[in-house]
Amino acid sequence: MWAEILPVGRDGDTGGYRRFAWTREDHTLREWFAGECTRRGLDLTEDRMGNQWAWWGNPDETPGVVIGSHLDSVPDGGAYDGPLGVVTALAVIDALRDKGFQPSQPLAVVNFVDEEGARFGVACAGSRVITGAMTTDRALGLKDADGHTMAAALKAAGRPTNVGRDDETLRRIGTFVELHVEQGRALADLDPGTSAVAVGTDIWPHGRWRLDFAGTANHAGTTRLEDRHDAMLGYAQTVLAARTVAHQRGCVATVGKVVVEPNGVNAIPSHVTGWLDARGAHEESVRLAVADLVDTAKQHGGTVSEESWTGTTTFDPELAQRMRTLLGGQAPMLGTGAGHDAGILANAGISTGMLYVRNPTGVSHSPEEFAEPADCHAGVEALTTVVEGLAS
Amino acid sequence: MWAEILPVGRDGDTGGYRRFAWTREDHTLREWFAGECTRRGLDLTEDRMGNQWAWWGNPDETPGVVIGSHLDSVPDGGAYDGPLGVVTALAVIDALRDKGFQPSQPLAVVNFVDEEGARFGVACAGSRVITGAMTTDRALGLKDADGHTMAAALKAAGRPTNVGRDDETLRRIGTFVELHVEQGRALADLDPGTSAVAVGTDIWPHGRWRLDFAGTANHAGTTRLEDRHDAMLGYAQTVLAARTVAHQRGCVATVGKVVVEPNGVNAIPSHVTGWLDARGAHEESVRLAVADLVDTAKQHGGTVSEESWTGTTTFDPELAQRMRTLLGGQAPMLGTGAGHDAGILANAGISTGMLYVRNPTGVSHSPEEFAEPADCHAGVEALTTVVEGLAS
Repeated sequence: MWAEILPVGRDGDTGGYRRFAWTREDHTLREWFAGECTRRGLDLTEDRMGNQWAWWGNPDETPGVVIGSHLDSVPDGGAYDGPLGVVTALAVIDALRDKGFQPSQPLAVVNFVDEEGARFGVACAGSRVITGAMTTDRALGLKDADGHTMAAALKAAGRPTNVGRDDETLRRIGTFVELHVEQGRALADLDPGTSAVAVGTDIWPHGRWRLDFAGTANHAGTTRLEDRHDAMLGYAQTVLAARTVAHQRGCVATVGKVVVEPNGVNAIPSHVTGWLDARGAHEESVRLAVADLVDTAKQHGGTVSEESWTGTTTFDPELAQRMRTLLGGQAPMLGTGAGHDAGILANAGISTGMLYVRNPTGVSHSPEEFAEPADCHAGVEALTTVVEGLAS
Repeated sequence: MWAEILPVGRDGDTGGYRRFAWTREDHTLREWFAGECTRRGLDLTEDRMGNQWAWWGNPDETPGVVIGSHLDSVPDGGAYDGPLGVVTALAVIDALRDKGFQPSQPLAVVNFVDEEGARFGVACAGSRVITGAMTTDRALGLKDADGHTMAAALKAAGRPTNVGRDDETLRRIGTFVELHVEQGRALADLDPGTSAVAVGTDIWPHGRWRLDFAGTANHAGTTRLEDRHDAMLGYAQTVLAARTVAHQRGCVATVGKVVVEPNGVNAIPSHVTGWLDARGAHEESVRLAVADLVDTAKQHGGTVSEESWTGTTTFDPELAQRMRTLLGGQAPMLGTGAGHDAGILANAGISTGMLYVRNPTGVSHSPEEFAEPADCHAGVEALTTVVEGLAS
């Protein structure tokens, strides 16, 4: 399975993946997923947002255990973030059947759509819409870099546009377990003899803020330094301050995206917009770091506006403990700074857990993202053990 | 004339102009120019690059006095940069005829194509190509932001693509005088009783440098600060250093354009490219400022490469003195940090001069660019006087 999807959406120059929602690459992967599920005799359905669910057993009789992840990527992303969880889930079904396992409740593999939000800017759009965490109007009105709305993208892809909260789908999920490559190297930093698979405890509080700096457009060659109002300078000061306050407050802060007007070599920038991503283990430390940064931006003529904020998401502690016990009681317990569909489902009140597979470099959202084959196989074994335990 | 061209290419939202070479807006302005010239009975010709020349008299008998400028704009540029010189030149022809002036040598009005280089990145493409300062191959291969070459743009606009050096056209130019709105407020800072029109002395040395910072793509939420290699930080340090070294060395430096990879809110930048524009009255000060900045960029893991460098361009000193005498001997003499087609012609060995019209705010390359109507009329009078003097 891994070899089949490896070429899809891979950029020949960078080696990174460009699998964006409702593009041809996305369509190819969805077709591949449907084929794998049909081949296994699973009942494939799509919910109101187009997330794909493949059931073994009837979830309308009793809610089931769902495993899976997503197949889309960030721009120039890696091969593992998302696909490892989907391929592992399909391999788990195979392993269970090889064993002759008869589940006591329905099982399903899910492929969530648009988890990365690479195209429309909102991560986990697939799970947000079906849980009602994002309204239909907001979702359909989101625009990509070319100005196309999500509604237009759905139409262009031949998809229904009556997307929205889907209680029927949510009712079917008794438990959701998402396996994911670790994004960070907490597991790799442990003793090499430790388990290659960890159990997730929570998702750090995290948010996005827009940083706006207004300047005055003017000629770069003829305007005296003392007459300038150069928006790039306040932006640069705030980028550096973001790193400093993150150090001081013990969290992480990144300015990864910037848009400059008019972005001409010989034009003093009239407007610079940057986006800050800040996260940390503790809500208060993130809040304090951002408050410090608001002060810095103001000092340099900028404004800061909050685009999103999610407090700590705690996965079902009983489920996490049960998974750890099933895995022999020694698996490391891990919090993460990354958002996942599992977090959205947890916040919607569904019993949800995660498993992480060791990442030797910790690198993620990059062509360098990697996990050892042996560790990936350990992930299949661990998830098989968990599902066996939950559905016995 | 001013009222006729004022709406062409004006953006309704910003009030700025978007008149880029070989676009519909450019075509409209070229047609307008041709109409004005034909209406005055001037002989309209185009050279090998499509610059428009409208002659009064036969320049193949004896070289003549050429006045004019350009009609294209930077993105969201002002109304005056370029068009003021063209409209003034046409008004000068009218003024000379109203006086019954009989020139002793041919006169012409020129409209240079693609002066701003807004679309293909090289300023003064029209004059560079006909003087041989830019080769045919380089010009035709230049690409715009959509990846279209200049060759393709010429074809799409129905223009010939056999562009190149045009000695026949150059031979016809005895003297070239370009009138331009001042880009800066040197004139506005003088006593209000001083002339609203200055005589150009030289164009400052100037250059462009590319600043490259490599980082490692990684997840913004899960990568520890100490594990990061964030290309945005070195970029920000260098932006701030550019301002500092410019102050220290007495020149100007601007980072007006930046491109970030992958430019995602939750992705640590793997590559940031910035462009530095540096200019000053003295070559040595600019060179020293850039050398300082190369050190700073290196300290922060970056590299600096020179994309262009032009030393001081001195306009014909005899012509400048003669113009000043014609204008009463009191006109201020002004150097400038802005490049012009006049500079390209001067470097090609043609006797060339410039006149600047006062700009009350100094703002240029911006919708706020302005000159008082009275000062624009003073420009027409001054250029009329100069042409009368030169062609008597």
